[in-house]
Amino acid sequence: MSEGALASLKQVLVGKPIPSHLAHHERLTKATGLAVLSSDALSSVAYATEEILLVLVAAGTVALSYSLPIAFAIAALIAIVVSSYRQTIRAYPQGGGAYVVSKDNLGVPAGLVAGAALLIDYVLTVAVSAAAGIAAVTSALPALFHYRVWLCVFAVAVVSVVNLRGIRESGKLFAVPTYLFIVSMFVMVVYGALGAVFDFIGEAPYAPHGPGLEGVGLFLVLRAFSAGCAALTGVEAVSDGVPAFKPPEARNASIVLAWLGAILITLFLGITYLAYDFGIVPREHETVVSQIARHVFGGGVLYYAVQLVTMLILLLAANTSFADFPRLAFFLARDRFIPRQFGNQGDRLVFSNGILILGGLAALLLVVFRGETHALIPLYAVGVFISFTLSQTSMVRRWLRLRGQGWWWRAALNGAGAAVTGLVMLTIAVTKFSHGAWIVLLLIPTLVALFMMMHAHYDDVAGQLSLEGFAPPPPMTNTVLVLVGDLHRGVVKAIQYAQTLSPAAKAVFIETDPERTRRLEEKWAKWGMGAPLIVLSSPYRSLLGPLLEYIEHLQQHGDNHVVTIVLPEFIPARWWQQILHNQTALLIKGRLLFRKNVIVTDVPYHLKH
Amino acid sequence: MSEGALASLKQVLVGKPIPSHLAHHERLTKATGLAVLSSDALSSVAYATEEILLVLVAAGTVALSYSLPIAFAIAALIAIVVSSYRQTIRAYPQGGGAYVVSKDNLGVPAGLVAGAALLIDYVLTVAVSAAAGIAAVTSALPALFHYRVWLCVFAVAVVSVVNLRGIRESGKLFAVPTYLFIVSMFVMVVYGALGAVFDFIGEAPYAPHGPGLEGVGLFLVLRAFSAGCAALTGVEAVSDGVPAFKPPEARNASIVLAWLGAILITLFLGITYLAYDFGIVPREHETVVSQIARHVFGGGVLYYAVQLVTMLILLLAANTSFADFPRLAFFLARDRFIPRQFGNQGDRLVFSNGILILGGLAALLLVVFRGETHALIPLYAVGVFISFTLSQTSMVRRWLRLRGQGWWWRAALNGAGAAVTGLVMLTIAVTKFSHGAWIVLLLIPTLVALFMMMHAHYDDVAGQLSLEGFAPPPPMTNTVLVLVGDLHRGVVKAIQYAQTLSPAAKAVFIETDPERTRRLEEKWAKWGMGAPLIVLSSPYRSLLGPLLEYIEHLQQHGDNHVVTIVLPEFIPARWWQQILHNQTALLIKGRLLFRKNVIVTDVPYHLKH
Repeated sequence: MSEGALASLKQVLVGKPIPSHLAHHERLTKATGLAVLSSDALSSVAYATEEILLVLVAAGTVALSYSLPIAFAIAALIAIVVSSYRQTIRAYPQGGGAYVVSKDNLGVPAGLVAGAALLIDYVLTVAVSAAAGIAAVTSALPALFHYRVWLCVFAVAVVSVVNLRGIRESGKLFAVPTYLFIVSMFVMVVYGALGAVFDFIGEAPYAPHGPGLEGVGLFLVLRAFSAGCAALTGVEAVSDGVPAFKPPEARNASIVLAWLGAILITLFLGITYLAYDFGIVPREHETVVSQIARHVFGGGVLYYAVQLVTMLILLLAANTSFADFPRLAFFLARDRFIPRQFGNQGDRLVFSNGILILGGLAALLLVVFRGETHALIPLYAVGVFISFTLSQTSMVRRWLRLRGQGWWWRAALNGAGAAVTGLVMLTIAVTKFSHGAWIVLLLIPTLVALFMMMHAHYDDVAGQLSLEGFAPPPPMTNTVLVLVGDLHRGVVKAIQYAQTLSPAAKAVFIETDPERTRRLEEKWAKWGMGAPLIVLSSPYRSLLGPLLEYIEHLQQHGDNHVVTIVLPEFIPARWWQQILHNQTALLIKGRLLFRKNVIVTDVPYHLKH
Repeated sequence: MSEGALASLKQVLVGKPIPSHLAHHERLTKATGLAVLSSDALSSVAYATEEILLVLVAAGTVALSYSLPIAFAIAALIAIVVSSYRQTIRAYPQGGGAYVVSKDNLGVPAGLVAGAALLIDYVLTVAVSAAAGIAAVTSALPALFHYRVWLCVFAVAVVSVVNLRGIRESGKLFAVPTYLFIVSMFVMVVYGALGAVFDFIGEAPYAPHGPGLEGVGLFLVLRAFSAGCAALTGVEAVSDGVPAFKPPEARNASIVLAWLGAILITLFLGITYLAYDFGIVPREHETVVSQIARHVFGGGVLYYAVQLVTMLILLLAANTSFADFPRLAFFLARDRFIPRQFGNQGDRLVFSNGILILGGLAALLLVVFRGETHALIPLYAVGVFISFTLSQTSMVRRWLRLRGQGWWWRAALNGAGAAVTGLVMLTIAVTKFSHGAWIVLLLIPTLVALFMMMHAHYDDVAGQLSLEGFAPPPPMTNTVLVLVGDLHRGVVKAIQYAQTLSPAAKAVFIETDPERTRRLEEKWAKWGMGAPLIVLSSPYRSLLGPLLEYIEHLQQHGDNHVVTIVLPEFIPARWWQQILHNQTALLIKGRLLFRKNVIVTDVPYHLKH
């Protein structure tokens, strides 16, 4: 593909470049902010109830009634975490991600742990959301179940491309489906509850299970609780994204987070109650929410609409990570803990490298875990709760240090949050350890160690390049040599070029066959452009040996003396023709690259066909 | 591994470099010439009889008696081909390979067909010989049968390394085993025949089969004959290798070829007779020659010695191709039909590229065909007989053209050879087509087409680069720019370097953030080495756009005006650290490489740790 065609394809997919001075116009209103930043948390109601039921069903369908008290515990947890995070928003209007907050208050290692945990969770958010979104589709259209892995990967690809276009357009694109999801879930919960009470929606598949069963172990209940904690993932997205809001940023973000908490608790409790009331049992080919919706709406158009908007909000949830992952990577790159490439904005004011890596890793996870939500869940949430705990512990430290107005109750609120989320984190780590959490618990310290090694490297390089205490170097001198193997138009151009660099430029020829030397010298008289031709004899037919000896001889001229080797190189019109020509130039460059004070310059001669 | 350690390893494996002026001392005597160049033909007695029997046995063991008349026909064919080739040697003392001879007399396309056929057959010679050699070993040591594929590959690797050391040492290394093979086969045939007549070697496994059976189709007999023609492969090696002999080259080669013919016919007929007389039937795990030897020598030390020398001569046969393949590739490269890399001699006066490719392809074939001689045989021989036919037809044309002394009987002799080998070629192509010969018949025209395309490309490039009719270009002018993104020790070095190229060198900075520009300008006053700093603004944060615009602006200076972009680049001490740094330099080089009159020069700054 030509360069122009590639550029056009890029414009069609990701849009035209956006100038830097327009950066401010890409901000979020409260309404679009809710659509973009809270979809991760809200969408988890599509699978959180199911994950609780899936654990409990191991003890028989009678154990499913435990879902109600577990859901209440999780609702309380949501309330605590949301209240705690609203304080973070006010304290860190420039963006209070767990990485920044923990680094500020608990030190660099804590910040890096939070950062590593969040990076992992962002990847999992994309994978889990795509898997759950496609599960909503295959619940409605079972014929597609067989293709779910590729549908998941396709969904991730679509979201990646949308994000390469930039965040405001993503907001516009997804605002409508978010609100449709909220409305349709409310309708389903309210209509379903009323229908059950006033008996206008038909017989439920099972009767509700009687509560208070014996024989269900504490460990199983805790595992079910841990599984349900997936409902909390994404709550932190709002506080991470404060600077993306329109001014006043902190106030807008804080209001959006309160809305989010209220909606999340209502929907989660409502869905869990209906699942309990309808006696729903989790199935492999149909999600719990799909079963509820099918029962409430009777499998008609409304049912399909619910599945569609469920899929859309889950894609939007994946989208949240596409805003957060590159932003966190940017902070880490700015602080030189990860490669600097993540610090570059693309020409659409988005962090293209982060987006591409996130999409790639999520697609990989989906392929490895065969697109199954349930298989991915044990890896999820651990990281989120590590970052919750660190972030809120940080806030406690902050209030204790600053002691501003109302510091004691603020510290108490964040302290309660930290204690509860810390406890949940331990519960999740223990109960899900063997189901996959160990992978994340192994990955986090590995990432932290890598971050620290890279940081040390960058510090070292900066020190070596620093001009502080650098003695001004003596003037540099330069000998220019053209390495020739023949004399043709490309060589003539290279000689001319060398002569613009230094009037004393010389040509060097390595002799392997005296007959060839004689023929070259004949041509040289006419086409050598007046440059002297130095013939170095090579009894072993090696090109490099005699050249290196000659360079060493020249470098005795002085300490800051450079030898420039000009290499005539003809560039074929088509790339594959390159292999038909001697790779001598490449070989010479490779060998000279690491030699001190030798600089190799290719002079390309472009062939036309 | 360090460069020094690599060089030492290379010296241990392939020996010290040999200077060009010693080239003449690497020549072959008649005795070593027979060892090196006739082993391919001689070694085929180790499997040719077996291949005949394997075809005949399909019609029942009673059909095996047809092996005798078939063997006589093949012996006659050998006599004709050898006589014919002795004329080629005298006519082409500089090396009468089928490629050179056919190109000279029948034109380029015929030469390329012969060349393609021979290249393929050289690869097959290595593969078949290695497979048959390892079969000799596994016949004696059946426990190794399971590992035969890897033993084959290992054998090819050993022969490749020996050849990278150079041809004279190969001759010395293998002369003893060749003569041991000839002697041991003679002893086996004579002792076996006498033993059978005078009854001192025990009862044969079967009685000889009565001749003259009905019901064996002509097609089967022709297929058996085709299979046995594998005995002729390698006969051409002597005429290809004439220049490798000591002077008088042609006379020595001609004598060696006569010896070869006589020995080959005797051994082949003797072995086939013994197989017939002992009533031997081919088996999967033991070769026919092994069965004969076991019967003659009774399974003692002599038997094992025969198997060992059989393996050694087969490795030497593979070795013949390692002399011929690179030599033919050299001719093709010299005539610009294949990439020029094949025209380079390595530092041991051998054609290293050809050796490596031959060894690699043969190893690949052995893996694909599971190291089975019988599976490889149908691909073999077709190519050889195509080149026989072309080579001898060429000789007929030559005699008719030159009409020297005795031209008419010489033409008749070569004509008979051409007619017979042409007929055999058709027989092989038809009878073995579906068993694998089709692969070769498809590959030959494909290779010929590739050769012609490459030739056209090289001609075109030579035309474009030719100085004939080239108007001396106007004097070149040059603007030197240093592209800077920051100011550190590496940049200071690059500025100094640019100033040696042109006192008017300027630095260029692409502004994406005015604050950074301000900081840079502050540093510039102290460390800018007096070079002017040009700031190009980039509203879209693209580095390349503004740079390309500026270059275009500069190039309006004139037709032969070049812009040199000096890129400061720091080289980390360890290669993997490279990925931790911005790949901007690489990106810029990639984009500027194909722009006319722009030359990019890296100035490396080597970090210490």
